[in-house]
Amino acid sequence: MKFEIKKKSKKARVGNLALVHGDVKTPAFMTVGTYGSVKSLTNQDLKECNAEMILCNAYHLMIRPESNLIEKAGGLHKFMNWSRPILTDSGGYQVFSLSNQTKVSNHGVEFKSPLNGNKLFMSPEKSIETQLYLGSDIMMIFDECTSYPSNEKDTEKSMELSLRWAEMSFNANNSNMPLFGIVQGGMYLDLREKSLNELLKYNFDGYALGGLSVGEPDHIRREVIEAIGDKLPANKPRYLMGVGKPLDIIHAVNNGIDMFDCVIPTRNARNGQLFTNYGVLNIRNRKYEEDLRPIDQSCGCFSCNNYSRAYIRHLDKCNDILAARLMSIHNVYFYQEFMGQIRSAIDNDSLEDLIKKTENNYISI
Amino acid sequence: MKFEIKKKSKKARVGNLALVHGDVKTPAFMTVGTYGSVKSLTNQDLKECNAEMILCNAYHLMIRPESNLIEKAGGLHKFMNWSRPILTDSGGYQVFSLSNQTKVSNHGVEFKSPLNGNKLFMSPEKSIETQLYLGSDIMMIFDECTSYPSNEKDTEKSMELSLRWAEMSFNANNSNMPLFGIVQGGMYLDLREKSLNELLKYNFDGYALGGLSVGEPDHIRREVIEAIGDKLPANKPRYLMGVGKPLDIIHAVNNGIDMFDCVIPTRNARNGQLFTNYGVLNIRNRKYEEDLRPIDQSCGCFSCNNYSRAYIRHLDKCNDILAARLMSIHNVYFYQEFMGQIRSAIDNDSLEDLIKKTENNYISI
Repeated sequence: MKFEIKKKSKKARVGNLALVHGDVKTPAFMTVGTYGSVKSLTNQDLKECNAEMILCNAYHLMIRPESNLIEKAGGLHKFMNWSRPILTDSGGYQVFSLSNQTKVSNHGVEFKSPLNGNKLFMSPEKSIETQLYLGSDIMMIFDECTSYPSNEKDTEKSMELSLRWAEMSFNANNSNMPLFGIVQGGMYLDLREKSLNELLKYNFDGYALGGLSVGEPDHIRREVIEAIGDKLPANKPRYLMGVGKPLDIIHAVNNGIDMFDCVIPTRNARNGQLFTNYGVLNIRNRKYEEDLRPIDQSCGCFSCNNYSRAYIRHLDKCNDILAARLMSIHNVYFYQEFMGQIRSAIDNDSLEDLIKKTENNYISI
Repeated sequence: MKFEIKKKSKKARVGNLALVHGDVKTPAFMTVGTYGSVKSLTNQDLKECNAEMILCNAYHLMIRPESNLIEKAGGLHKFMNWSRPILTDSGGYQVFSLSNQTKVSNHGVEFKSPLNGNKLFMSPEKSIETQLYLGSDIMMIFDECTSYPSNEKDTEKSMELSLRWAEMSFNANNSNMPLFGIVQGGMYLDLREKSLNELLKYNFDGYALGGLSVGEPDHIRREVIEAIGDKLPANKPRYLMGVGKPLDIIHAVNNGIDMFDCVIPTRNARNGQLFTNYGVLNIRNRKYEEDLRPIDQSCGCFSCNNYSRAYIRHLDKCNDILAARLMSIHNVYFYQEFMGQIRSAIDNDSLEDLIKKTENNYISI
């Protein structure tokens, strides 16, 4: 892995991240392909949406497919026929948000499979082992995701456990594949700093902010990012996990963040919420019933080049899954375009203007 | 419309059907796009599957979209952005199979919209009017579809009503767009002949067999087709409506039929049933769990070029609609390939061999 910063504008950075499966321009947004697929989209759709790197979940792919099928297939890239970079989440967040009856110890977490109730065990070692056989371009350490709200004492305890697991994850990586550390500490800035300082010992290949976008108000999330974003090592990629909305992204970029992932563009697309250069548009709104314009006249995506709002709305009303696909294509494309606009704005030292425009369009979501 | 027969081999014919929106090679299979879309597939997918002509339903498109949106959009081709030919079904079959509380008179059918319970009226005039504003390349007369089983007296009455409506449909067509007649008469060969002889008066642009594939045993359907298929005017396209399975298609071709439509390839795809050159394959079968081969190694479709059975099965298990799409692409492509094989076999006077092969592969479905 090679990370190169090409331009700085105040705290914001434009860079290039060279990975085993190709280059990724930063700031970058990763579309989420939980189970080894971005719902409704093929590899070709993703390429046509200019997606460079996607995120898949080790937790989900450990549970399903149940066998060692992906290993047999020669790794996740071959299994899903995706030739560009993949980052895998470690499963920490999912173990706590999706499983029942979790039993946490210093060694890891025992939990019941939501699929069949089987007892499963996830640990730093197991997570790294899984991510290694998946063959991801960037692995994440296994951590505990602190819920919100959480008092300072519980948050500290959780953060300390994550630090222990960070060390175990680091030691479990017997490869030279990149591994990122994850800063925890909830909404407590001193705990965030402590977490970061401890993680620096391991000289991880990149540093992420975890435990955000877990239900806290926007302004609290932004305070944390503002305080800690630019303190993450400057020569390494900085990744804000699970975020998010266009305004959150651009604010974080303005505080030095380079990488993002979120289910919003794809999940919201399936519910009819579309992102445009003029704000959001909900296709289920009656006012689009006879609107023969594309979703966004300034957009170059396949859906906007081929179909009208009225037609997509008609498909959605008829429960044709083509609607979900056309809207997913649009939103994935929009997010990649948005990241391109951000990179250009940094190159031109005009990020403030784009922030203002984004605030105008997206203040309400 | 211009129909040219290029080669005959016994009763089977290879031809070309020149329509406003392009040429269609016959024998032809039309994929069904009920609501103005082939479920899960874009125009581009359909072209890549070599689909030449699709079928849409006037009944469905009269009910939804509710307004005169398609007319405003400039017709169905523009609304759904499909530049190749479209045949529209008249709605006769659907009025009887999908509606409640139908009230039939000589003038037409009153029924309740399954969407909102509103009273609607469908008549020969209304059907032709609808098909004209949709702008289809081939329109069908409005008919009554006789259910199965039905005694001879009821069948005759129903057939007589369809003849009355055929005349009304013919008179309602104030355009020069092609209109096909539909031969009814259930499973009674003398009624079929009577229906055909009456319809010949109107010199329709093509002749269809309706009222088949309505629940009758395969051998009865085949007897009717054998008796009547080659009696349809030889210089005009002959269309067997709502059929069907590969074996039904090839038997009908062998009896002089040129055109087909059926939901089987797309509907069955969404349920995991795939057509291959070696018979059917159900992706949900456990034996494909770790099968890293494509659906059909001899197939050139996008899905077979890109993905394995195990991956598609995994997507299906995860309820990713991408599974439905990949399987639809495969089946639509397969059917077009199959029709191509049929045309080649007629060209080479080797249809019997292909029938035997098809019997071996598809006798069970």
